[in-house]
Amino acid sequence: MTYSPRTRLFIEAPLTPGAVIEAAEGQAHYLMHVMRAKAGEDVALFNGRDGEWGAKIAYPAKRKVHLEVGERLRAQYTEPDVWMVFAPVKRIEFLVEKATELGARALHPVFTRRTTIGRVNRARLLANAIEAAEQSDRLSVPEIPEAAQLFDVLGAWPKERTLYFLDETGGGAPIVEVFAAARSYRTVKKPLAFLTGPEGGFDQSELDALRGLPFAVPVGLGPRILRAETAALAALACWQAFCGDWTYPGDEG
Amino acid sequence: MTYSPRTRLFIEAPLTPGAVIEAAEGQAHYLMHVMRAKAGEDVALFNGRDGEWGAKIAYPAKRKVHLEVGERLRAQYTEPDVWMVFAPVKRIEFLVEKATELGARALHPVFTRRTTIGRVNRARLLANAIEAAEQSDRLSVPEIPEAAQLFDVLGAWPKERTLYFLDETGGGAPIVEVFAAARSYRTVKKPLAFLTGPEGGFDQSELDALRGLPFAVPVGLGPRILRAETAALAALACWQAFCGDWTYPGDEG
Repeated sequence: MTYSPRTRLFIEAPLTPGAVIEAAEGQAHYLMHVMRAKAGEDVALFNGRDGEWGAKIAYPAKRKVHLEVGERLRAQYTEPDVWMVFAPVKRIEFLVEKATELGARALHPVFTRRTTIGRVNRARLLANAIEAAEQSDRLSVPEIPEAAQLFDVLGAWPKERTLYFLDETGGGAPIVEVFAAARSYRTVKKPLAFLTGPEGGFDQSELDALRGLPFAVPVGLGPRILRAETAALAALACWQAFCGDWTYPGDEG
Repeated sequence: MTYSPRTRLFIEAPLTPGAVIEAAEGQAHYLMHVMRAKAGEDVALFNGRDGEWGAKIAYPAKRKVHLEVGERLRAQYTEPDVWMVFAPVKRIEFLVEKATELGARALHPVFTRRTTIGRVNRARLLANAIEAAEQSDRLSVPEIPEAAQLFDVLGAWPKERTLYFLDETGGGAPIVEVFAAARSYRTVKKPLAFLTGPEGGFDQSELDALRGLPFAVPVGLGPRILRAETAALAALACWQAFCGDWTYPGDEG
């Protein structure tokens, strides 16, 4: 059977041949009223574990949508092991969307001294990430841990994961030099993370602490001042391009 | 005299010591009502030609703001010779803001077959670019030519400028390979441009035409599908990082 899905949906349920999955309320609404999908129309499903599957849409009752799972279209693919750790900024939803497109495996909001946003709506960020994953052909949705204090996150940091922090004071080496040392990722696949500050930047105590950590490396992004979300995306794009999964053609499981 | 400007403003007038410049209406409003700047307060000025200058704010009459130019703070700096040529997308203002932060020298909207946006408000894009230039510490505002048809732009293309087009069909080499060949920019400073399509991508006739042009090079950005504006920014960031002015510390005139 061939499938020509117009739509990709992330679901929680296991994907196995012949499974019939009831679409969640929001997805049912989307299929019926936004996509105006007909019964029998194809849709692609992924759950972050079982790859991508072709399915058919069925309407067994009013306001009920079933997804009848058929064949697997793609094997599961795992994004490179890069996290984006970021102080919440005004454009946090944009940051989450773009970091998802750019293949971050996890997105972790952290509160810093100068963070002006008091509360992070995790459910909303997750919804943004799911939508971006669906549209970008990802087979997984990035993990989004609960927002936490920067110093708590640093205190519990897994030491084998290099933390590249974007040092807007100009203290970091050019990112090309940092990455020249990191190119070995392709073969050894070392875990890493990027860290960006809030609109007002890191304060001195945070910079001092970061500079003293053995797993943290300051990174510079050129002579212009980048907004926090721009810096996050630029660093992630550069890393994917030069060390991550943009460096080899096609999928690698 | 030392200056501690809270604000940077782009102005058109020549900047010379002792010059008194009348602030434009929008800037006067911004200084008085948004920044609540006091008389005698410092401001930094740039015009894209004369470097950055310190100035003092004066209020000679009601609703009139004078900028009294003092000393030059920085010599003129020119962004690398990279253009961003792009099909207008829904998030065009975001694209313009980010491409300005990332140091594009010119931003050129082009209409393609699948472009759904019928009209480009050039004045509004210019305002976005000016604001982004002011905030990003740039000493110039990117040029924004009038929107034009893609094929007209390609027909009049300056042949010495390499055109890297983002090929969402997967026909391009990984950007790291393309840039490995372009690393010589640092010494020879060859002009270049990136080209991105609309939300729906280039159509087949456009791809065929691009592939036949001697100055055009297809570029690939990995296994995920990027939105048009994400692709534009990712490519520009990668280029700055690996060939442009993020590769050397400090300013080069």
